[in-house]
Amino acid sequence: MELIYKGKTKNVFKLEDGHYLLQFKDDVTGENGVFDPGANSVGLTIDGAGLAGLKLTSFFYSKLNEQGIPTHYVDANFSDATMTVKPATVFGKGLEVICRFKAVGSFLRRYGAYVQEGQELDSFVEVTIKDDERLDPPISADALHMLSILSLEEYAILKERTIEISKFVAGELEKKGLTLYDIKLEFGRDAKTNEILLIDEISGGNMRAYKGNTYIEPLELEKIILAD
Amino acid sequence: MELIYKGKTKNVFKLEDGHYLLQFKDDVTGENGVFDPGANSVGLTIDGAGLAGLKLTSFFYSKLNEQGIPTHYVDANFSDATMTVKPATVFGKGLEVICRFKAVGSFLRRYGAYVQEGQELDSFVEVTIKDDERLDPPISADALHMLSILSLEEYAILKERTIEISKFVAGELEKKGLTLYDIKLEFGRDAKTNEILLIDEISGGNMRAYKGNTYIEPLELEKIILAD
Repeated sequence: MELIYKGKTKNVFKLEDGHYLLQFKDDVTGENGVFDPGANSVGLTIDGAGLAGLKLTSFFYSKLNEQGIPTHYVDANFSDATMTVKPATVFGKGLEVICRFKAVGSFLRRYGAYVQEGQELDSFVEVTIKDDERLDPPISADALHMLSILSLEEYAILKERTIEISKFVAGELEKKGLTLYDIKLEFGRDAKTNEILLIDEISGGNMRAYKGNTYIEPLELEKIILAD
Repeated sequence: MELIYKGKTKNVFKLEDGHYLLQFKDDVTGENGVFDPGANSVGLTIDGAGLAGLKLTSFFYSKLNEQGIPTHYVDANFSDATMTVKPATVFGKGLEVICRFKAVGSFLRRYGAYVQEGQELDSFVEVTIKDDERLDPPISADALHMLSILSLEEYAILKERTIEISKFVAGELEKKGLTLYDIKLEFGRDAKTNEILLIDEISGGNMRAYKGNTYIEPLELEKIILAD
């Protein structure tokens, strides 16, 4: 199999049957040796971080597939820390779709004149473009449409799916006594059918979860969710 | 009459008949003594800047009123550099509505991965919240709605009016051989009828205009538009 992309936290291989293999690495994003899922550079290596991310992704994506919410997930191999996925193309140069249940992070930094920290938000969806150099700026539905990144019809589907998936994840966290504050998803188009698919991963680094008023670190979160 | 607000470039007085009086000052926004309409602080004083802004605003708003596009403009007194306006309330703590015909400025800084400098944009509308401390962040229709700043119905009207007004201004500039790149408008609700009104001003400092490839400074722009 052929290595086609070396990412910050994953390597991507092309398989002979047309599928792709994502290899989850123990490298995590952060700055100055501190794990920060929102950071744009690899900050440190944590033994087992890749496998923990893969296990959580496999947990969520297999359940989503069962519920008829299309994802790129085919299966996972925990001994190699790899996940087999369907081929998909990203929108433009890649988008991140955020669903917010509580006002924290960049939302609070932008709209702090109108919201209190931690104020409840009604499954608020926003999209940012993946662009490290320009600090991943938010982009509106109209701008995505005008720049031919996404049609308005596709935006509507993306928004609906994001709310559906995020509420599902929030529900799984709730079963373990945790509250989901926000979550970041990625979508693409199925390379064969053009259908909108949930791609990438859902691991601890994709969300902010709290137990009461305490922020739960990504690796701790993965342990809690996957505990019997 | 009572002074009720001292702004960066205008003072506001309440009149006894319920109208308000805006007094245009010669202070203009900028940094380090350079006129910059996008700046958040007053940078310098230019003799005649207030009157020039008032004359251009009066020119555009009286024509808009004639066309049935509601504005807060009642009349102007050039000898005092004042404008009488209807009472209106702003959305939240104030919004700026931008219409873009060419990709320059903050749009280019955010979406430079997808557009070339100066590329044509299809009357693209975006809203920013007035918040000097948070650098006037852009905000989506959904966020405006969720934060109870504007309903989705009002957003639709705002967007339609913005395009209509901006195209009208672009047409007036075109008569003088100028091209409008982008323009910033402000809207509010009529204090009596709740109708959406164009408020504030449209002067050289609210727009970027070019003659060929040359940027036209706000005061020069006012001279060109108002020349017979």
